Amino acid sequence: MTARQIDALLVTSLPNILYLTNFKGSSAAVVLTAERLQFVTDFRYVAAVEAMRGTGWECPNLELVRVDQSYDETIATVFGSMPGAKVGIEGAHLAVSRYEWLQRKLADVAGGPGFVATEGIVEAARVRKDAYEISTLREAARRVSRVATGVFEEIRAGRTERDVAMAIDWRIRQGGFERSAFDTIVAAGPNAALPHARPGERMFAEGDLVVLDFGGVYDSYCVDLTRTVSIGRASERAREIHAAVREAHDRAIAATKPGVAAFAIDAAARSALDARGLGEAFGHGTGHGLGIEVHEEPRISRRRPTDGDAGVEAGMVFTIEPGAYLPGLGGVRIEDDVLVTDDGVEVLTDVPSDLIEL
Amino acid sequence: MTARQIDALLVTSLPNILYLTNFKGSSAAVVLTAERLQFVTDFRYVAAVEAMRGTGWECPNLELVRVDQSYDETIATVFGSMPGAKVGIEGAHLAVSRYEWLQRKLADVAGGPGFVATEGIVEAARVRKDAYEISTLREAARRVSRVATGVFEEIRAGRTERDVAMAIDWRIRQGGFERSAFDTIVAAGPNAALPHARPGERMFAEGDLVVLDFGGVYDSYCVDLTRTVSIGRASERAREIHAAVREAHDRAIAATKPGVAAFAIDAAARSALDARGLGEAFGHGTGHGLGIEVHEEPRISRRRPTDGDAGVEAGMVFTIEPGAYLPGLGGVRIEDDVLVTDDGVEVLTDVPSDLIEL
Repeated sequence: MTARQIDALLVTSLPNILYLTNFKGSSAAVVLTAERLQFVTDFRYVAAVEAMRGTGWECPNLELVRVDQSYDETIATVFGSMPGAKVGIEGAHLAVSRYEWLQRKLADVAGGPGFVATEGIVEAARVRKDAYEISTLREAARRVSRVATGVFEEIRAGRTERDVAMAIDWRIRQGGFERSAFDTIVAAGPNAALPHARPGERMFAEGDLVVLDFGGVYDSYCVDLTRTVSIGRASERAREIHAAVREAHDRAIAATKPGVAAFAIDAAARSALDARGLGEAFGHGTGHGLGIEVHEEPRISRRRPTDGDAGVEAGMVFTIEPGAYLPGLGGVRIEDDVLVTDDGVEVLTDVPSDLIEL
Repeated sequence: MTARQIDALLVTSLPNILYLTNFKGSSAAVVLTAERLQFVTDFRYVAAVEAMRGTGWECPNLELVRVDQSYDETIATVFGSMPGAKVGIEGAHLAVSRYEWLQRKLADVAGGPGFVATEGIVEAARVRKDAYEISTLREAARRVSRVATGVFEEIRAGRTERDVAMAIDWRIRQGGFERSAFDTIVAAGPNAALPHARPGERMFAEGDLVVLDFGGVYDSYCVDLTRTVSIGRASERAREIHAAVREAHDRAIAATKPGVAAFAIDAAARSALDARGLGEAFGHGTGHGLGIEVHEEPRISRRRPTDGDAGVEAGMVFTIEPGAYLPGLGGVRIEDDVLVTDDGVEVLTDVPSDLIEL
């Protein structure tokens, strides 16, 4: 905030609010200054915030501000007492209407605040995980790996995508997760050619490749895992595609260490697929950051940021998930979660990545 | 759009996009003019959109625009070919940074578009459900009611909130829902005093009131149901509170018909609780609209809109869910889903609302 020359930051992104305060509800705002953290929430959550007092989850120095009429009226009141302040808002999260309303509302306040859109202030702290976060993500990855092993036992010809997706979600909850981190993907045969397929009534048939992509939220942190299995014996072509994706996956992990640019990690995966004629079949990025959100920074993609790329850093946690999608034929994706360490990489998930024929 | 004097509308809200096009993915934008619907999506979803062609889910006249570099670059290209157009954006949904970027990007285009923030254009169509939506919501409400009946059989002393929440989510999926509509609430004893409690390790104990609040997404439409049950015999005080909430619930439903203001429906519930000294214990609104989102318009709350309230209209679907929350003691909430008909109200959910002692 000092570097950006702002006196206060209005935080409206719930993941950012959770990061700052441990609040897990669905409505709140934080007004942050160098000295104070004012926490704005409504009737429904006041008791939950009070209940954290004196526990390990308490946010130090949190000042509770209860919403009276509306969130924005309450936030305006807080800023009304900051004459001359320069206030940053979260440009990626605050909606245009709320921003315009706040600006109008406070335009008449003599010496009232001036607003400026900021980018990624809290996210910049979130991108490198601290020791607590790493131990949480490590435990979550261990648990999701165990879920995967159990899931394999359920896969057989005749079961439907939807049926197995339900079983996966049940196992995620049984595994101690709060919930699935996203809509579980179970995509069989030609459906596997859609990277974001929705589980349907298709029955698994002999020779199908089945993409299983699922994740869980454990103690507020997200992990994400994908394996592709074969129903019965895989065709030669299916084996080739799987082997190419696996090589792309392994190469991207091998390339990961502090200082290596995200696009270079992506390129390591992409070149392996290119070399097998599958470059066109790999239409998405190689990975995404994991944390309070299931898709966060850093993005491991081919995009080269215009302002340079200082490279990944120790403490970053992200997925490595190359894939190949061939319309009509099907698809393969292999995804693990990795932590960048001081001198390399630690793969947090632990599930065999060879093509399992079930 | 004509009334608001805009030539084009940039739709970025995913529920609004689903309403307009049946698209269920997680990334897309729509540029709407009087003549055209340009649908912007990326590699991951192109095949899914193409697969709707020729089916009953096809969006007529949809022109697919595939994202090349980024969504915003692609959207800017679309608007770059609309010289002089006045473009509305969705003020409640578009983030400040994206809006400022688009404005800057197109500022240099000679005769390029001018932007203006709009409110609730697509939402205004969504608030009154059509025959297809009503039949979907009616079926969803029938199914969630059946789930509730099954859930009651699982409630007994010794089970935990978390355990029962998992069972509810499983039953929702078994009942044909795509997923739970929100994080299921199971709040027992003193936890029931938190309207948005998260299920924890608390075991149900004799005499606990347990608030069970859950919902499902069926064919993209959300329903939402709450019942409060007693573990074993309820205390006299618990019965009184439950009776008061039930009366508030019944009065609000009885007050519902076309032309009655939302705040008057809320007042019908609130006055019943006030009369029993529980007005202070009812801190939230009486209900919220249901549809593609689990919380949408209309809001049934005490707020009187400054521009008047023309009253609810036939085709609106919303919850009626008064509650009373007493810190330390517990809470009661009873929630049903109602449809405003031409001459009154139809209660879509069908579960007994008396205090069940289990």
